[in-house]
Amino acid sequence: MSERLRIGVFDSGIGGLSVLRHLVAVLPHLHYLYVGDTARVPYGNKSADTIALYAAQSAAFLRNRGVDMVVVACNTVSATSLPVVEAVAQVPVVGMIEPAVRAALEATRTNRIGVIGTRATIESQAYELALYAHSRREGLAVFSHACPLLVALAEEGWLAHPATYAIVEEYLRPLLEAAVDTLVLGCTHFPLLAEVFEQVAPLHLIDPGYWAARQVQQILGIPNSEHPLRHAPHIEYFVTDISSNFAAVARQFLGFEAYPLHRITLDHLVPSTL
Amino acid sequence: MSERLRIGVFDSGIGGLSVLRHLVAVLPHLHYLYVGDTARVPYGNKSADTIALYAAQSAAFLRNRGVDMVVVACNTVSATSLPVVEAVAQVPVVGMIEPAVRAALEATRTNRIGVIGTRATIESQAYELALYAHSRREGLAVFSHACPLLVALAEEGWLAHPATYAIVEEYLRPLLEAAVDTLVLGCTHFPLLAEVFEQVAPLHLIDPGYWAARQVQQILGIPNSEHPLRHAPHIEYFVTDISSNFAAVARQFLGFEAYPLHRITLDHLVPSTL
Repeated sequence: MSERLRIGVFDSGIGGLSVLRHLVAVLPHLHYLYVGDTARVPYGNKSADTIALYAAQSAAFLRNRGVDMVVVACNTVSATSLPVVEAVAQVPVVGMIEPAVRAALEATRTNRIGVIGTRATIESQAYELALYAHSRREGLAVFSHACPLLVALAEEGWLAHPATYAIVEEYLRPLLEAAVDTLVLGCTHFPLLAEVFEQVAPLHLIDPGYWAARQVQQILGIPNSEHPLRHAPHIEYFVTDISSNFAAVARQFLGFEAYPLHRITLDHLVPSTL
Repeated sequence: MSERLRIGVFDSGIGGLSVLRHLVAVLPHLHYLYVGDTARVPYGNKSADTIALYAAQSAAFLRNRGVDMVVVACNTVSATSLPVVEAVAQVPVVGMIEPAVRAALEATRTNRIGVIGTRATIESQAYELALYAHSRREGLAVFSHACPLLVALAEEGWLAHPATYAIVEEYLRPLLEAAVDTLVLGCTHFPLLAEVFEQVAPLHLIDPGYWAARQVQQILGIPNSEHPLRHAPHIEYFVTDISSNFAAVARQFLGFEAYPLHRITLDHLVPSTL
């Protein structure tokens, strides 16, 4: 029964809740286990091997809980460590990159695509490589830019502050000078700033979380639900730290309360496959 | 021989290098071991018990290396976990709070002091409690404000950007409305933004790192050095992650190259005293 399927979703912290929100909207009747490594967040400025270790520990936690599929709700992990997650999880894994890449290639009219993300995501060139690999047209041009400050601004809820506009304008300037018409929001925090992006420049915005949810639906072969949920979605939350503002920030990303919330540790999980 | 003394200095990441810089300037002939938990940075938005565990692991690392003194070069750890560090380190421990508090009480003319720091530092009320405890005057008033975005701005090197000014103005507004004349920069990242603070408002700025270095000097009874260093200062650096921009950011905080650099892990250290 597909309605009993258990989907593991993990992220470096709370940003992945913006992905979980799409999953619940598209596939409301599944069971979700969300892991947020809030004690070691953020990953986006860390080295690829540290990110791989931490991602493997989250994947091992979810594997030990017997999930049927893992959604890597973190662009940084998807960009740097997807093979590690696949090796550890031992179930189908959906990352952020490929669904977003297909959507971006469909959306662009000018064949000029911008990608923004954390430093680790951009340095990995995962989006660029996947865009060039999937494009069947000549003349595709991809421009990418690391935007680390936007993570903090989104988490602090400064979603309409003049400083946020000034920072977004600065970050987007090289991409707009390159005349991109499509922008991949390659970090789970960035969709919260969609209104700012829209006001700074008229671009096709690609939210990888939405397209990843659609890909999960496609893989599972579940049609759009005609039966709205009559109860709260079935989600369990596992986090490595619970800070004083966790509930407020989580609500901002998720749209509803993150509950029940369990505190876990991941440090001790050393996946044998690493 | 005091010149052989080994001083352990630790921080959640690289911010503590701004403290190490003061130590080396004041006490250039000592040997320093710097620990930066760059894999789990930042601590400032985490819960007090996670911060205490991570701080205990750094203290245990330094104790195992046989240091003679530990400087907690992190306001967040100093504010939330100093007793834990003292219990684990088993040598004299100097934190950021007390030296800064004495300097602020000496500096203020109006008896109205502002404190800014990470969310964890401000929520701990450690600065407020210490200021009120040390003040011998009636009518002291302390106003504090968490400024989490300034950490990211300082690390990104946006030290003179219009957005940084806008954010600093917003953060300082309630403190200026409260008419403070003295401001404790209660996070090791904030002294990098001293020029911005100076331009936004004419306040006595207190850099806890400088006053902590003076307190170390006082405890050790070492006079100001009349012999300038004829070689590089004797410092070893131990970090839990080496990101691609580590060297550049470290140079910004330290003023010179952070070398030799060793990669360590702290996760496995479970101090028996906890």
